[in-house]
Amino acid sequence: MNQELQQLGKQAKAATRQLMKLASDQKNQALKFIAETIMEREPNILAANDRDLEAGEKMGLSESLLDRLKLSPQRLEGIANDVLKVAQLPDPVGEEFESRVLGNGLRISKRRIPIGVIGVIYESRPNVTVDIAALSLKSGNAAILRGGKEALHTNRAFAKAVMDGCVQAGLPEHTMQLIQSTDRSLVKEMLQANQYIDMIIPRGGPALQKFAIDNATMPVITGGVGICHIYVDAKADPDKVSPIVVNAKVQRPSVCNAMDTLLVHQSVAKFILPQVARALAEYQVELRCEPRAYKILRGFPDAIEAGVDDFDTEFLSLKAAVKVVDNLDETLDHIYEHSTKHSEAIITEDYSAAMRFVNELDSSAVFVNASTRFNDGGQFGMGAEVAISTQRLHARGPMGLYELTTYKWVVLGNGQIRI
Amino acid sequence: MNQELQQLGKQAKAATRQLMKLASDQKNQALKFIAETIMEREPNILAANDRDLEAGEKMGLSESLLDRLKLSPQRLEGIANDVLKVAQLPDPVGEEFESRVLGNGLRISKRRIPIGVIGVIYESRPNVTVDIAALSLKSGNAAILRGGKEALHTNRAFAKAVMDGCVQAGLPEHTMQLIQSTDRSLVKEMLQANQYIDMIIPRGGPALQKFAIDNATMPVITGGVGICHIYVDAKADPDKVSPIVVNAKVQRPSVCNAMDTLLVHQSVAKFILPQVARALAEYQVELRCEPRAYKILRGFPDAIEAGVDDFDTEFLSLKAAVKVVDNLDETLDHIYEHSTKHSEAIITEDYSAAMRFVNELDSSAVFVNASTRFNDGGQFGMGAEVAISTQRLHARGPMGLYELTTYKWVVLGNGQIRI
Repeated sequence: MNQELQQLGKQAKAATRQLMKLASDQKNQALKFIAETIMEREPNILAANDRDLEAGEKMGLSESLLDRLKLSPQRLEGIANDVLKVAQLPDPVGEEFESRVLGNGLRISKRRIPIGVIGVIYESRPNVTVDIAALSLKSGNAAILRGGKEALHTNRAFAKAVMDGCVQAGLPEHTMQLIQSTDRSLVKEMLQANQYIDMIIPRGGPALQKFAIDNATMPVITGGVGICHIYVDAKADPDKVSPIVVNAKVQRPSVCNAMDTLLVHQSVAKFILPQVARALAEYQVELRCEPRAYKILRGFPDAIEAGVDDFDTEFLSLKAAVKVVDNLDETLDHIYEHSTKHSEAIITEDYSAAMRFVNELDSSAVFVNASTRFNDGGQFGMGAEVAISTQRLHARGPMGLYELTTYKWVVLGNGQIRI
Repeated sequence: MNQELQQLGKQAKAATRQLMKLASDQKNQALKFIAETIMEREPNILAANDRDLEAGEKMGLSESLLDRLKLSPQRLEGIANDVLKVAQLPDPVGEEFESRVLGNGLRISKRRIPIGVIGVIYESRPNVTVDIAALSLKSGNAAILRGGKEALHTNRAFAKAVMDGCVQAGLPEHTMQLIQSTDRSLVKEMLQANQYIDMIIPRGGPALQKFAIDNATMPVITGGVGICHIYVDAKADPDKVSPIVVNAKVQRPSVCNAMDTLLVHQSVAKFILPQVARALAEYQVELRCEPRAYKILRGFPDAIEAGVDDFDTEFLSLKAAVKVVDNLDETLDHIYEHSTKHSEAIITEDYSAAMRFVNELDSSAVFVNASTRFNDGGQFGMGAEVAISTQRLHARGPMGLYELTTYKWVVLGNGQIRI
């Protein structure tokens, strides 16, 4: 194994034994110091960020990537404030649940404990470095982070601030560690370091996620890729349709919980589709229509015929696939075939249709009469999130502090033996 | 991918959509039919078992393996009764938790749902086939099982009874499927069939578990390998020590929650070790002692000097490693270095020592003044278990019905959009 990774792994494992013992006050104190350190080092962090931006321009990064990379005093203050918000969240560690007393008098409970060492692989946005450090620290985990090359100097400046804040509060220095090497082969080695890393989160596109699934020897939290559906039922309240569809598509088109596919019941398609198309036209949303939908929307300047992959595409932009469906069964079949299990919504006033939709789908979040954009840790009141999971185990949807814990059984006896 | 596996995978995935919708009564009815079918087919199943036993004898299987393989009318009745017991357990599917109403009026909850398709790889004991079928059915999952070659005919007879019971109750035929091919390469293909199998449980020794960790593309539930420790503290109640140690070592030495290592505080070692050695001598337990312990136990016929691997060995037999430790810190360090994170117990009347032991260890179950043998689904009141997990995510310790579920977020609104 790569020397640096091995050293980081050992240091992280050693830190976990201290981290799991910490009381909330100590962890919150560290978070406060981290936020303060970030603010104190504003010139330093912005200068590091400038170096990344200059290098990025030379490398020919796109405008949108450069924008994601760019920090300002305001953004920095936002990042520091987010750390303070994590300090205010309840500490999940130590909570006991499913407690009971057995017939023989043994008292047993599941007790929430940190997972251990969390590995995260991510790109460009440097705020991720601080967000993940704060959430993993508060949940008592150590973190090993591998950020994108294009944000290297910014990430290093942030990592230094985090580590210094930890040390100032008496926490282990290796609570959070950033991999310094930019060697690409390290990603694969990281995925196979299951003796050191207990859970890995690949924050990136489908290619990175597949690479992690195929190569990781520890559990992988996949997610953040959403082909999200909204189904307009025969009994939809017409007044709710356009606001929800527009919000789900337009409010922030570049993210995973934005709508990609609009399914409309055939009995209302002629009425609903033009209404929705007019509302979306204000934002120049391109509508990629299957034949029945295209027949209705042909006149609209942004409506085109759907290509073969359009119902299997996460657009991340102002585009949507549109389809007319015969009924709810066809809708459910379509979603099972094309969904990435992220977020699906039905718009309806029909009780049975709403119940079937939420009961029979298995995506990470299913909505009735609400925008898919709500599948988010902040919106769900979890404070923040390290990922939106679409895999099937452990945690689904937004992963906040609780989802960064596991449990052990605590069994208190007075001499019981098994008969 | 292997044709059979692909077909089984598709059929299992198709079954999951029906399974997740089933009400408890239907599932319990199927379990009742399965139990009845097993009892009705007693001659048939015992004849299949005889074929396996004959083949096993020819292949030169050991007495203990043949004994694990062998069914009798009593064992068969026990297996059928266990199915009926699963029918009586509460159904975890559909339970909602962490429910709340957001500021905007959205009602959100986590709702327990089946995981999907569970893959299990196991050996010899044919009751596993029925146990896992019953638990996965009750929790709404489909199962694909790969049993050992030596139990092939018995497993086939059981699988037929399970499938027929399912069909009789109107459940999908492919609720539970047994891989028929005995081709060894199929195990690796099964581990990489993550498009069909959502979670894999390798029930077997360390070699199988490592093979699964290294090759699986879906989450792996490792477990069932326990290097379990009992620590006798300076303040242990001497009357509790021998009963607990003897129970943990002797009551069933061949299983994972049996004690492997005995650690004794130096201040009481001279008194406690001979007492324990006398109690264990009744069962001819071999004691493999590190130097300080050997100095005390040298006179005992079953005491020998420990070899280099003895503190890293799951004995599964009447052997134990014995060590004198200076204090609780050395105990915790020893356990962190040698444990497989299964079960650890402290015997003490000292409040602070007990608290430190349960707070600072992270094994799947930590005990105060009780035998490690209690780390078991039946003992914990979970009815039954598919595995005892020692990995860090999703579930730890006994995995019963609840641990065979995951969740989705259900979000009920009346037109909410994100601002």
